[in-house]
Amino acid sequence: MTSEVVRRELVAALGEAAVMTAPGLALDDLHDESLHRHAVEPLAVVRPSSTAEVASVARIAARHGVALVPRGSGTGLSGAAEPVPGGIVVCFDAMKRILRLDPADQVAVVQPGLTLRELGDALAGTGLRYPVYPGEMSGSIGGNVNTNAGGMRAVRHGVTRHHVLGLELVLADATVLRCGGAVMKSSSGYDVTQLVIGSEGTLALVTEVTLKLAPVLTSCATMLVPFENLASVCQVVPRLIATGLSPSITEYVDAPTLRALAAASSLELGVAPQVAERAAAYLIVLLETRTDGQMDADLASASALLEEAGALDVYVLGEHAASQLIEARERLFWVSRDEGVRDIIDVVVPRSAVPSLLDASREISRRYGTRIGGCGHVGDGNVHLSVFVDDDERRQSIVRELLRLGLAVGGQISGEHGIGRDKQDYYLEMTDPALLTLQGRLKDAFDPEGRMNPFRRFTPRGGDA
Amino acid sequence: MTSEVVRRELVAALGEAAVMTAPGLALDDLHDESLHRHAVEPLAVVRPSSTAEVASVARIAARHGVALVPRGSGTGLSGAAEPVPGGIVVCFDAMKRILRLDPADQVAVVQPGLTLRELGDALAGTGLRYPVYPGEMSGSIGGNVNTNAGGMRAVRHGVTRHHVLGLELVLADATVLRCGGAVMKSSSGYDVTQLVIGSEGTLALVTEVTLKLAPVLTSCATMLVPFENLASVCQVVPRLIATGLSPSITEYVDAPTLRALAAASSLELGVAPQVAERAAAYLIVLLETRTDGQMDADLASASALLEEAGALDVYVLGEHAASQLIEARERLFWVSRDEGVRDIIDVVVPRSAVPSLLDASREISRRYGTRIGGCGHVGDGNVHLSVFVDDDERRQSIVRELLRLGLAVGGQISGEHGIGRDKQDYYLEMTDPALLTLQGRLKDAFDPEGRMNPFRRFTPRGGDA
Repeated sequence: MTSEVVRRELVAALGEAAVMTAPGLALDDLHDESLHRHAVEPLAVVRPSSTAEVASVARIAARHGVALVPRGSGTGLSGAAEPVPGGIVVCFDAMKRILRLDPADQVAVVQPGLTLRELGDALAGTGLRYPVYPGEMSGSIGGNVNTNAGGMRAVRHGVTRHHVLGLELVLADATVLRCGGAVMKSSSGYDVTQLVIGSEGTLALVTEVTLKLAPVLTSCATMLVPFENLASVCQVVPRLIATGLSPSITEYVDAPTLRALAAASSLELGVAPQVAERAAAYLIVLLETRTDGQMDADLASASALLEEAGALDVYVLGEHAASQLIEARERLFWVSRDEGVRDIIDVVVPRSAVPSLLDASREISRRYGTRIGGCGHVGDGNVHLSVFVDDDERRQSIVRELLRLGLAVGGQISGEHGIGRDKQDYYLEMTDPALLTLQGRLKDAFDPEGRMNPFRRFTPRGGDA
Repeated sequence: MTSEVVRRELVAALGEAAVMTAPGLALDDLHDESLHRHAVEPLAVVRPSSTAEVASVARIAARHGVALVPRGSGTGLSGAAEPVPGGIVVCFDAMKRILRLDPADQVAVVQPGLTLRELGDALAGTGLRYPVYPGEMSGSIGGNVNTNAGGMRAVRHGVTRHHVLGLELVLADATVLRCGGAVMKSSSGYDVTQLVIGSEGTLALVTEVTLKLAPVLTSCATMLVPFENLASVCQVVPRLIATGLSPSITEYVDAPTLRALAAASSLELGVAPQVAERAAAYLIVLLETRTDGQMDADLASASALLEEAGALDVYVLGEHAASQLIEARERLFWVSRDEGVRDIIDVVVPRSAVPSLLDASREISRRYGTRIGGCGHVGDGNVHLSVFVDDDERRQSIVRELLRLGLAVGGQISGEHGIGRDKQDYYLEMTDPALLTLQGRLKDAFDPEGRMNPFRRFTPRGGDA
């Protein structure tokens, strides 16, 4: 039996403790945080502890024609880390060393299993930080790379793609190679690093990541700004960005969502009742500067602009309330899940198209007689919509409408969650076939046998492979 | 005769005026600014004026198995835009429209022939700019995309790669497709945009570029800072960056190079003679802030740090002297060329490795008994070395030594000039064969017949194709 042979070879390469097979599989290893899980049992779950061991796993998989699915911390939202039947799940949580931390070069070279929290802890006191903030601090760097994770600070600091300088990869045929490096720019051949970022494990196994760090800005202030309507929020954000104030967060939360957040997390935000009554939409703004003097000046400029643009008030939150609010915003996924959310859309559109998309979502919500919760990274056009409807067909029909609207205004299906298994059918249906064909060829260039996270397809179901 | 048939088809598609063949070819269209030009006569030089015309050219080329070489303004330094025998040079200087300029979204959608100067002029008064500054303002956006152009402001603003959100492409088989778009982030399939950036015309013809713009920062100050030695310059730069002051330029110029620049451009920099006598290396720092008040504070912080780190003095240049100095720095290539430079290296290394690389260049200069001029973007590790030696074999041997040193400390062969024809042999010789093989497969995925700027090889000369 092949699977027993594979198991024995894996155990010989990694040791007994690093290889799990049924019935010893841990359920936690078999899914991410997708709302649409499929109970799939893989051939094995392995935990290599070095690049050499990852290459051994790839060699064994190649020999037996077995699929490989990489898994970081399983915090993804799109089902990209789910096992495939008969495949090997490669968990990277035994590879979390920081191989180099260089304050002069402002780079960190890390193994992919390192979590954002662990990286943050290691950087404490160095004056440096990794500024990408997807929110879920238990997420792994490898997972972030494969998803091109974004988050609330993207409006100023960019996304994972902008902070990864180089990778070490293990290819499907077990070749180990390096691309990029600890350099800030390069024009030296095709940028394989950038191609692998966001590829959701379908091109290669990432075994090492060189990250660009940034100086910590020590003076921070969080503003909570109520408006009477969403249009005003959307109008003020480009103006705020155009000032050069460089806000690190410009987050939109609608009033019902803020109320839900405040209730779930017992937030004390100090919004006066007569303001709360009139507020339909809130803008959260984080400013970060080098000095307190500069912060005073920036806060004054920002407040003047916000008030002039129709803010009902501008609350500069205390440190405690501010961190509570940001943490609560990050927990929104869990709050929504507890409330029975059935789908989460993270369509990204040009900033100016956010109001029309949100108007449309309200119209759809009325038409289907269902709630669609809204919040989002309004500064970078990445809107998060929570769909609460039980019927699968109606849910898919709502998602389809919203995604089509996003694409029609020049957007893309996912800003930061990825396509994964969950959005693959929508993606295939809505993407130019010529672009799909080219992507299929790129996949073949890395993985001609189609064994790297083989959920990814390039033609709609029923079409040719 | 095929060439006559091709010519006739091109004329039918583009019109007589847009198709040139020998003996009517303009010499200017047949080279870029590489120091190592080859006199090659192509089958034709064409000037399409729309994406549809570019696709027609590609269709004709595909039908007859003819190669395509894109050309922007010909300001490249690595020979990537040179014709190939029997091929078609596709000049984009008739495609320079701004298709969309959106202040709210802070994006510009432009045709590839638009020059940096033309884009800058169009943005005047909008409060926005395209912050990448490769220096040569006659360079085209399409050329910048294909080279992943960098320049002096990369230390703060990044390179072309960080400001291109989407592309329209014409593939070798004449397929027209779009990738990316006017969105600030995406996790929706493989990032074809990023793969094409820096590909030097070897993957596809770029027919439209969506650029991310940035707010103009209105308060600027340029500091010229003499030091007794280069080591001090290299040590202070990471400290300066670590403060969060975000300098937009941190440029190193050695004393002989600054003298040559000052003489060539009649610069009045106001450096006291007793300081000039002791100075072996100069650091140029540009600060940009939102307000004059912030600039005063930042200048004070920066000056204190620089003086504490051994600066012989800190000269804050007047506006006129500052722009003269930056322009003179940009003209350095031409100054060097007039002085008989034979090769220009733009190796990029981790920032902390710059001193060892420059030490090595001085040692090599002594050993070969020849001058090697130095300046560079010390903030991002991109060192520019001018080699003045007539004998080709000795020159190549010097270049080889310097590139190998750069690679040995974790660098890459080119930070911003590209590999092109000039550095291809070095690149093939010094790059991991596994990475070359993968790149060859990526090339095949776009261009299975190898007709897109076919100078690019993936195995050393004499190896298998």
